[in-house]
Amino acid sequence: MYRSHSCGELNASHISQEVTVAGWVQKSRDKGFMIWVDLRDRYGITQLIFDESRTAKDVFEKAKTLGREFVIQVKGTVIERESKNKNIPTGDIEILVTELVVLNEAQLPPFTIEDETDGGEDIRMKYRYLDIRRNPVKNSLLFRHKVAMEVRKYLSDLDFCEVETPYLIKSTPEGARDFVVPSRMNEGQFYALPQSPQTFKQLLMVGGMDKYFQIVKCFRDEDLRADRQPEFTQIDCEMAFVEQEDILNTFEGLTRHLLKEIKGIDVATFPRITYDYAMKTYGNDKPDIRFGMKFGELNTVAQHKDFGVFNAAELVVGIAVPDCAAFTRKEIDGLIDWVKRPQVGASGMVYCKYELDGSLKSSVDKFYDQEDLKKWAELTGAKPGDLILVLSGPADKTRTQLSALRMELGNRLGLRKPDEFAPLWVVDFPLLEWDEESKRYHAMHHPFTSPKPEDLHLLQSEPGKIRANAYDMVLNGNEIGGGSIRVHDKDLQARMFELLGFTKEEAENQFGFLMNAFQYGAPPHGGLAFGLDRLVAILGGQETIRDFIAFPKNNSGRDVMIDAPSFIDEKQLDELHIKLNILK
Amino acid sequence: MYRSHSCGELNASHISQEVTVAGWVQKSRDKGFMIWVDLRDRYGITQLIFDESRTAKDVFEKAKTLGREFVIQVKGTVIERESKNKNIPTGDIEILVTELVVLNEAQLPPFTIEDETDGGEDIRMKYRYLDIRRNPVKNSLLFRHKVAMEVRKYLSDLDFCEVETPYLIKSTPEGARDFVVPSRMNEGQFYALPQSPQTFKQLLMVGGMDKYFQIVKCFRDEDLRADRQPEFTQIDCEMAFVEQEDILNTFEGLTRHLLKEIKGIDVATFPRITYDYAMKTYGNDKPDIRFGMKFGELNTVAQHKDFGVFNAAELVVGIAVPDCAAFTRKEIDGLIDWVKRPQVGASGMVYCKYELDGSLKSSVDKFYDQEDLKKWAELTGAKPGDLILVLSGPADKTRTQLSALRMELGNRLGLRKPDEFAPLWVVDFPLLEWDEESKRYHAMHHPFTSPKPEDLHLLQSEPGKIRANAYDMVLNGNEIGGGSIRVHDKDLQARMFELLGFTKEEAENQFGFLMNAFQYGAPPHGGLAFGLDRLVAILGGQETIRDFIAFPKNNSGRDVMIDAPSFIDEKQLDELHIKLNILK
Repeated sequence: MYRSHSCGELNASHISQEVTVAGWVQKSRDKGFMIWVDLRDRYGITQLIFDESRTAKDVFEKAKTLGREFVIQVKGTVIERESKNKNIPTGDIEILVTELVVLNEAQLPPFTIEDETDGGEDIRMKYRYLDIRRNPVKNSLLFRHKVAMEVRKYLSDLDFCEVETPYLIKSTPEGARDFVVPSRMNEGQFYALPQSPQTFKQLLMVGGMDKYFQIVKCFRDEDLRADRQPEFTQIDCEMAFVEQEDILNTFEGLTRHLLKEIKGIDVATFPRITYDYAMKTYGNDKPDIRFGMKFGELNTVAQHKDFGVFNAAELVVGIAVPDCAAFTRKEIDGLIDWVKRPQVGASGMVYCKYELDGSLKSSVDKFYDQEDLKKWAELTGAKPGDLILVLSGPADKTRTQLSALRMELGNRLGLRKPDEFAPLWVVDFPLLEWDEESKRYHAMHHPFTSPKPEDLHLLQSEPGKIRANAYDMVLNGNEIGGGSIRVHDKDLQARMFELLGFTKEEAENQFGFLMNAFQYGAPPHGGLAFGLDRLVAILGGQETIRDFIAFPKNNSGRDVMIDAPSFIDEKQLDELHIKLNILK
Repeated sequence: MYRSHSCGELNASHISQEVTVAGWVQKSRDKGFMIWVDLRDRYGITQLIFDESRTAKDVFEKAKTLGREFVIQVKGTVIERESKNKNIPTGDIEILVTELVVLNEAQLPPFTIEDETDGGEDIRMKYRYLDIRRNPVKNSLLFRHKVAMEVRKYLSDLDFCEVETPYLIKSTPEGARDFVVPSRMNEGQFYALPQSPQTFKQLLMVGGMDKYFQIVKCFRDEDLRADRQPEFTQIDCEMAFVEQEDILNTFEGLTRHLLKEIKGIDVATFPRITYDYAMKTYGNDKPDIRFGMKFGELNTVAQHKDFGVFNAAELVVGIAVPDCAAFTRKEIDGLIDWVKRPQVGASGMVYCKYELDGSLKSSVDKFYDQEDLKKWAELTGAKPGDLILVLSGPADKTRTQLSALRMELGNRLGLRKPDEFAPLWVVDFPLLEWDEESKRYHAMHHPFTSPKPEDLHLLQSEPGKIRANAYDMVLNGNEIGGGSIRVHDKDLQARMFELLGFTKEEAENQFGFLMNAFQYGAPPHGGLAFGLDRLVAILGGQETIRDFIAFPKNNSGRDVMIDAPSFIDEKQLDELHIKLNILK
């Protein structure tokens, strides 16, 4: 062992002890007759001192040559520091060095290894192994491990069994695009990497495994939006002989446990709201409920006056922005410009200031009197001092726009506090959504989701109105998990495939093994999956997942550190029975 | 929830309680006026009773229709059984059923869901979800989870951090064949699936992560020998600032912990033997030391007599088979035939019976007197009553043959006891092995393995004699883990690549990122990886890994259950910029 202690553990209780430590030179201060070196490892920083009058000459001279990020090993005596540093656990002591070994030299790193680095995203990714030396990244990875361990312990204690499902599976065109793997031994055929272990976990339920989980990599070959990765990690779970209520309680328990263990936060029962309520109240199926600004629908009080814009709109809807009645004209114009940006797409915005004196002043005073505006205040829940902002237009679009505005204001007003955690369930999702492009229904969750029995009669007449036994867990404006009770009846599953436009042959070809399995005694079952990357980031108080992934890919799906993907040998292609299909 | 209790938990303390249970019909015995049903779930079996005189008529009639593997839910009262079954935890009670719901019917399964099934390997794999219902498979999966959790807890408690490394990485022609993944977004380029996270864990050490582990899937596109899988699971570990001794101690600790926690077995310090000793003593670098039969080299005492076969041989080597001097001529001829099989390949075998009266009787009495044969006994460690078996020929080949014979006899004589565990370390592996085909040296472990500093002077002159800081953990005749101290010096790493026949360009192209990383302060580091599939199987007392993998592939790399790999759409191929290269 190269050390007797780590760089994070020495304190006053070790004074006078002979110790050996090893690590990286964080920085060095050379005062001529005295040299201090901050030595860093994963566990902390320990100050080394080389003193011309107390350190052997050769050691002292060698210490002068140490550069940043050199890897060294030192022996010495723990002594009390003259000027203590109360900010770090080792701040009371330093090591008077007697022996110094340079284990490895280092070139000057391309960016500073500090909490606040001068390195941009690109260079940090190229030298990710140096980036990981920085506390923010290192601590994120340690934090991720802690969360994953807590998940595993909690679920194991509840008799969940982690089962590894295969990575080389079968391609199914449904859903997102698969990554595929050509098979050498099966000419012309391909494996696919799993988008999720969905069918396997259902088969484990058919197999009587009863309670399954897995922390598992999943793969989607999609064009990468910001903060998406082609490979990502799920906490994948499934239970048999359960109803929706059992799933909600179990995984609410898990999340409550994590908040308690990891963040020290007690959260009571999670609120449950329906998808319809979420859309009407927040314009969004993953509302951030750390703050209010619930939607107030104003059609009844704002239409049938002389304001043509509102009269022509399917929906007139507003929010009360707390304590912002004093916004200047310029500030409000800024907001109007913001909602008119193409990313939001509103054509305009009406405002109404609810002054502290109780009077109301709007941008449409020509059409609405105080009495009218009072009703706006009532319906948006505005109180004196608030600013009411109103959008109008087609219902879905307008809700989406107002939701964007609500979130933007939540951010600007500091209402989205990173140390506050407000989880909730959104339930009763629609089973299907209409796809304009393909002119057919798609499964909103996936084709195995069970419709609510009481809505089953709508299967032929109004399939779009069928609600599913599907649910999402939402935390601070992010969907962190989602799932459903599954179909476990082979006839119903066949009808579902039919409804989704599968021919019998397609269904048989892609999911025949599952349909087949359902003939041999499938229990009622359901489950959910959490997105671990996102969950960890949110628990860590961050909005972006990248620092919680050791070696992430960029937006072109490249690992710029190892330079992958890359070209491969002709021989490899030949063995795999494929050729390139590109213009050289 | 479909149940108040599982099928494994009811006992005499629950008598008179109203309960609800759900599960699968294991079997049903219909006595006309009385029907007993064994209800099974993951947790056990509970007996249900339907009694014409106590059960409602409709329930009783429905019970008559229940077939094997039907999924049912029942309510009823726990009562004391008349004839108790002491073999199962629920054997004191049964449930007098008042309500019966058939949750799902089942076709007759294609094989019996019993511990000893009538289903062959192929059909069990096709219906793996039914196979998993059987105790031997189900319990193997539960056991695997338990082992994995213990590993994670133990390493986490030692401050190891589990870090997820990427699955979409870069193809390197060195080593086994990669599975590759065509990139849609990077035309003509491919990812590779990792054969192991080797370079990433080393980069994590460069990144200061200090102690890393990961239970992780790895991939090798090799022709599958029996009991190999194209995807397999490793417990992958790496530590910084360590020497070989630290690694051995740490992972000996882990294995000792597993044996204690999982098997209740205390094992003292693991023996450590060198590779050379293992080869000379057992003909094998993964010896099963649960039994003796150590090799005795007989050249000095068996050569230079008149027996030409021995005189011409590079090596004459024997083992003493305990208490087998009484083997009949037929039994011995059987053994001779066995070693002459092409799989073993010996050209013949000499034997010598060490009779209980102290006399020795050999098949070459013509050439050797009692005095000579006594020396054979001494060198093989034979005692009266033992049978000495001797092979001769080229040294390496003969050792391999005798090793096969030793293992065969270990099996036949019941010396390889499944409940006995004899772990050991084999150390000081050669750094390189000569490959006749390519006429160059290959890395015996991998190109990152550190040579022993004291052997470094042989680098140019006799590279084949350099020993590595490489080690294997062996358990009961299986290599369950292996690793090495790594090179952490960029110049030495460059020399290693050169020695292995890489051009500068190849080394740069394939491992440039690692060589680059070594310039920025790489700490001394090393690690190892356990094969989880094998480890679990051995701890479970089995020789074959297949039942410890939920969804294994067959020897053609196929998943016969989901029928993968499979053909994919032309559209998919087009998007991936590839075409098939097959004769249609």
